[in-house]
Amino acid sequence: MVKETGRLTIPSDQDFLAETQQLIAQWGADAIRDSDGTKLDTALKQLSVKLYSTYFVARGYNDFVEKHPETIQELYLLSDRVAATEPEVTIPFMAHYFNQQIRPNYHDDPHTYWEVIDRTTGIVVPTTDWTLLPDADTVTVHHAVPYHEYTVSFLAELIWDPTEMYNHLTNHWGDVPHQVPFDVRYPVAQEFMQNTLRQWLAANPEIDVVRFTTFFYHFTLVFDNEEREKFVDWLGYGGTVSVPALKAFEQVKGYRLRPEDFVDAGYYNSSYRVPSQHYRDYIDFVARFVADQAKILVDLVHDAGKEAMMFLGDNWIGTEPYGPYFKDIGLDAVVGSVGNATTLRLISDIPHVKYTEGRFLPYFFPDVFHAGGDPIPEAKTNWLTARRAIMRQPVDRIGYGGYLKLAAQFPEFVDYVTHVADEFRDIYSKIHGVKPYAGLTVGVLNAWGKLRTWQPFIVAHGKWYKQAYSYEGVLEALAGQAVNVRFLSFADVAAGIPEDIDVLINVGGAGTAFSGGAAWQDPVLVARIRAWVAAGHGFVGIGEPTAIPGTYAGRTFQLADVLGVDQEVGFSLSTDKYQPTPVDDHFLTHGLTMPLNYGESTHNIYAFPETAVIASSAHEVYLTSHEYGAGRGVYLAGLPFSPQNANLLLRMLYWAAKREDTFQTWYANNPETEVAAYPAAGWYAVLNNTQAPQETTVYTTGGHQTTVQLNPEEIRWERIDHEHKG
Amino acid sequence: MVKETGRLTIPSDQDFLAETQQLIAQWGADAIRDSDGTKLDTALKQLSVKLYSTYFVARGYNDFVEKHPETIQELYLLSDRVAATEPEVTIPFMAHYFNQQIRPNYHDDPHTYWEVIDRTTGIVVPTTDWTLLPDADTVTVHHAVPYHEYTVSFLAELIWDPTEMYNHLTNHWGDVPHQVPFDVRYPVAQEFMQNTLRQWLAANPEIDVVRFTTFFYHFTLVFDNEEREKFVDWLGYGGTVSVPALKAFEQVKGYRLRPEDFVDAGYYNSSYRVPSQHYRDYIDFVARFVADQAKILVDLVHDAGKEAMMFLGDNWIGTEPYGPYFKDIGLDAVVGSVGNATTLRLISDIPHVKYTEGRFLPYFFPDVFHAGGDPIPEAKTNWLTARRAIMRQPVDRIGYGGYLKLAAQFPEFVDYVTHVADEFRDIYSKIHGVKPYAGLTVGVLNAWGKLRTWQPFIVAHGKWYKQAYSYEGVLEALAGQAVNVRFLSFADVAAGIPEDIDVLINVGGAGTAFSGGAAWQDPVLVARIRAWVAAGHGFVGIGEPTAIPGTYAGRTFQLADVLGVDQEVGFSLSTDKYQPTPVDDHFLTHGLTMPLNYGESTHNIYAFPETAVIASSAHEVYLTSHEYGAGRGVYLAGLPFSPQNANLLLRMLYWAAKREDTFQTWYANNPETEVAAYPAAGWYAVLNNTQAPQETTVYTTGGHQTTVQLNPEEIRWERIDHEHKG
Ligand SMILES: [Mg+2]
Ligand SMILES: [Mg+2]
Ligand SMILES: [Mg+2]
Repeated sequence: MVKETGRLTIPSDQDFLAETQQLIAQWGADAIRDSDGTKLDTALKQLSVKLYSTYFVARGYNDFVEKHPETIQELYLLSDRVAATEPEVTIPFMAHYFNQQIRPNYHDDPHTYWEVIDRTTGIVVPTTDWTLLPDADTVTVHHAVPYHEYTVSFLAELIWDPTEMYNHLTNHWGDVPHQVPFDVRYPVAQEFMQNTLRQWLAANPEIDVVRFTTFFYHFTLVFDNEEREKFVDWLGYGGTVSVPALKAFEQVKGYRLRPEDFVDAGYYNSSYRVPSQHYRDYIDFVARFVADQAKILVDLVHDAGKEAMMFLGDNWIGTEPYGPYFKDIGLDAVVGSVGNATTLRLISDIPHVKYTEGRFLPYFFPDVFHAGGDPIPEAKTNWLTARRAIMRQPVDRIGYGGYLKLAAQFPEFVDYVTHVADEFRDIYSKIHGVKPYAGLTVGVLNAWGKLRTWQPFIVAHGKWYKQAYSYEGVLEALAGQAVNVRFLSFADVAAGIPEDIDVLINVGGAGTAFSGGAAWQDPVLVARIRAWVAAGHGFVGIGEPTAIPGTYAGRTFQLADVLGVDQEVGFSLSTDKYQPTPVDDHFLTHGLTMPLNYGESTHNIYAFPETAVIASSAHEVYLTSHEYGAGRGVYLAGLPFSPQNANLLLRMLYWAAKREDTFQTWYANNPETEVAAYPAAGWYAVLNNTQAPQETTVYTTGGHQTTVQLNPEEIRWERIDHEHKG
Repeated sequence: MVKETGRLTIPSDQDFLAETQQLIAQWGADAIRDSDGTKLDTALKQLSVKLYSTYFVARGYNDFVEKHPETIQELYLLSDRVAATEPEVTIPFMAHYFNQQIRPNYHDDPHTYWEVIDRTTGIVVPTTDWTLLPDADTVTVHHAVPYHEYTVSFLAELIWDPTEMYNHLTNHWGDVPHQVPFDVRYPVAQEFMQNTLRQWLAANPEIDVVRFTTFFYHFTLVFDNEEREKFVDWLGYGGTVSVPALKAFEQVKGYRLRPEDFVDAGYYNSSYRVPSQHYRDYIDFVARFVADQAKILVDLVHDAGKEAMMFLGDNWIGTEPYGPYFKDIGLDAVVGSVGNATTLRLISDIPHVKYTEGRFLPYFFPDVFHAGGDPIPEAKTNWLTARRAIMRQPVDRIGYGGYLKLAAQFPEFVDYVTHVADEFRDIYSKIHGVKPYAGLTVGVLNAWGKLRTWQPFIVAHGKWYKQAYSYEGVLEALAGQAVNVRFLSFADVAAGIPEDIDVLINVGGAGTAFSGGAAWQDPVLVARIRAWVAAGHGFVGIGEPTAIPGTYAGRTFQLADVLGVDQEVGFSLSTDKYQPTPVDDHFLTHGLTMPLNYGESTHNIYAFPETAVIASSAHEVYLTSHEYGAGRGVYLAGLPFSPQNANLLLRMLYWAAKREDTFQTWYANNPETEVAAYPAAGWYAVLNNTQAPQETTVYTTGGHQTTVQLNPEEIRWERIDHEHKG
């Protein structure tokens, strides 16, 4: 067998040609990239690999911005809430903002574009009742009601690119000019960015791939007056606004947005919020604009004979890879950072590109690659975590970032990368383009649906949140499991549940966009799901599924009747709860060896009399099953990711779908191991997801089973012979 | 010193005269009572003690009910929720009700008095769209929407008195006729009950005290088809309704109530629900009626030269001892069951009676008083638990219930009762009518206010609930502490916080009447409290104080600004929370030796930057303090009762009120001990609340302190001398 090469991008470094050549050979790399802040060594250009060049569209051109200061990017910000103590209250609205990043926009009439709100009543203060003191960055409210809280929603200029600011502050760059991002909303900026790109393309003929990092608008990232992160939303549209944008929106959508549509009482339209129609409209409006403008740049790249790749992050806002306009951009590729199985799928499932690339960890940075450091544990964890997802839908390429010189100093790490690259190519060669076996199809149901494919629960990309991890485990499990996954919105489901869906899953905290909040007040939605479950399908609820905070219409969970459980919020304590006797033995917990772990768990859940209680304590239940017509509802209190919990989730899906008889198909009974099967290709693989040896019983088809011993991290490929095909 | 006697009621027993005389002498009893089911032995009537006779007004007269079946008591009940699967759905509305207790009222037109509701839309089904089949106890809905849930709210007769039913079923009375309660709403019933009482009074000249058990309406207690408790609300008005009552209500209040006003989506106006105006109006309407009718009976009792006492329980609904009409009844006394300090105060604080009496545990019943049984532990716990509250506001009498013969077989128990009676009389003689020292005045703020004095969180009287115990500890602590306690409603506070209040406390789960729910959307309320705290007062929040489920106006806790904490429900995860460094040492936790115990606790609470975090874990806080103007807000995640938690609460109150400098006044530093001081009487007492010896440092006034060794259960009386008076 000829060893495969390629499908690997590595970073460059200065004055490192020979070593780079050696690593290219050892790793089988076929592309080299620069990084933010470094440039490709001209010497590298002689190598027979593709060259990626990072390209920033809207930052790093301070000369232009100085000439056209009106084009500086802007955002709406909310001041602190200040309680009046007398009829006049002064709000220092810049308090707790970082004045090197944020500068109030005083040139567009504040009395037209700002809003002062009495947050205690929700009433907008008439513009005649407040005055602005620009020198002090204060607003004074007159005729205030004592002990009402007032806020100022103000339009501000973003005078420092958030990523460059972060790097600057983290790396103590000192007296280096701040990159001021400009807004392509302005025709003069569009013209400038197009010309700049044209010139750059002409000046860089040796570059093969223009790696846009990214386009026009950074996700919302605001620092505070102590130069710390104050607000971060990886999905946030905060930095996309401007007066021309507001005017264009009014033209297109037929109504005018208010500052409150952006600041949203201080929540800034977090993706945890059930999105308002105004915010949905705004996303649509911006995404259309971004696609149009990005297409112009991509066309220029293509005209220059190069490929256009976008980085999934930083200035990616408005690209919406799962949205309706993404295909119009015409990109060749997307590259993103891989933190786990979920983020791998977030990249690899993106449609309408020729290829996807996952950037793996660790970065070749001194925080890990220093004397005494060991980059291998992070590399192994990262690879094993993502590999499960690659088996379902591979990225087309993998890569690394940072400084090549640093990595080269760790020979065992260099060997590990060789292993990863070889294993990745081997996997890819076997399964690329082959539909893997899936036992069923899951619809992940929330307010966002397809638009936020693999994106629920993200706040800052890759960061752990107490309020998220008990739900994120669901996506992390699904991302590597032998099931098809679709993301469905409430509107999708209300219009008709797609034929291929076997199980709907609703997961999240009460009132959030992920469990659905007010969506569950829609009679059409609840009736449709009830009818569909009763007809023989499955509904899985995790956390506070279908919940209205407090109660609505006599229930907290609006599909309590399907799930067979509800949450006691105090109002129905008078109704006696006779918790059914927990069942001794149930398919859902067969073979689970460790105590169940619900993460933060959900409390005060009680089961209806006819519900099967599988896990409970004296006064609440955690895992239940309920027959509803010919279908089933299954409830779980929380699912942080673990191999056992992934196995539990798979059982829940099969049980809910009444497919438990086919559960042991292309299945390994040790939760640390998984099976991926590709009948069309005649392969199946048994994965050891751990760094320890594992024994597992592998079930193929037709009841065949074998016991398999796996080495640490092993992926064992087997041919599907006639017998296995059943 | 002459040994005091009296202030003690004991139960009677059959053929037990000599022994009863002996016990009267030993215990110093001055009253004998009968019990439900037993009658006073005529021989007892020669004793020189008062005789109490239980008197049932509205049950035990089946002959009358048979002649006047229209007077049978009624209630509105909600059927199960039944999902339609096709356009016709049949609801067996009696399913899960006990047909020996409940009988549908078919004689008042169901199409006028019942309601069929589509619970999925909330829309009332037109009466033309449903038909009733009385023989089957079913309603069939026509033109139903498939997979909408439908309910029937039906008027039903209560054909078995709930207490008698409970005793019957518990004690397997078998083929004994069921007592059917009648409703004094009907003039014929009023006439009957008055005549009956007149006759009874004439026939029982030797009775001194008529112990009404109680008046007209039992608290809501409904059994299910398995003869188990299905619904219980000790405060519930369920059983007060009837067609004449509905008509009278419409006359008095000017609008008509709907069945939904009673069934309340299945919550039946639980006291955890923020009471609707309709329900408040209905309580007022019933309480007025009950007071009017009860006054007639009490007047008859007085005319017969006897005293009228009411039992606080069973058929007590509508008496509302803390309501506006109670004084009109003219009762001499109230007797109630004492389970802890809270229930002691619930009895002893009742105004407008000449005396109150607490019935102590254990009952002299065979469940405890059997061969090998030991009644003393329960007696000790009950006495020590209630004694703290007696020191604040004594009942005027104590008593026991059950069978005297049983108690007499336990000589050590007889001795313990002697001890309790003597100790009670000694306490009473020293402190009756004397205002005890209180370091400050607390206002317990909820939707019910004074009407539900000492009654928050009760579902079934004396029963533990997972959703209640972490809040009930607050009342239990306050009931025995050296503070004045007032119960205030939101309306009270919005109208102006009373001058004497030093600290407001708001405790409970989000959305309940106890934390307040929608009340907190009232700008007048929140502004008034802010101003009041800022002026130097204290606000203590426990659990989910001031919370709107989900969020409202950018906050979950509407007084987050005062408390310095809010709850993260997911929407503001994007805003970085820099939890302040916990303070090493704080007045609030001085001297606390055990780990803090928040009971069920409250999760996802975060502190604002300027808040003092006193107890926390990595991602949430549990105990905090916050300066607000010249005042303070203090937050705690939950307070189940324990001596340490009681001490913590006291510290919170003093700290919030900025009275920490006077905290060590009439104070004992060992939480198992407490000090009660009566400067006007020249006494103070140090209580050992435990059954073990305790050492404690007692702080009197002016900084004086002494170390005191207390025997188990001891109450140590000391004279306040000149020095102590400071
Ligand atoms: Mg501008
Ligand atoms: Mg929650
Ligand atoms: Mg009747």
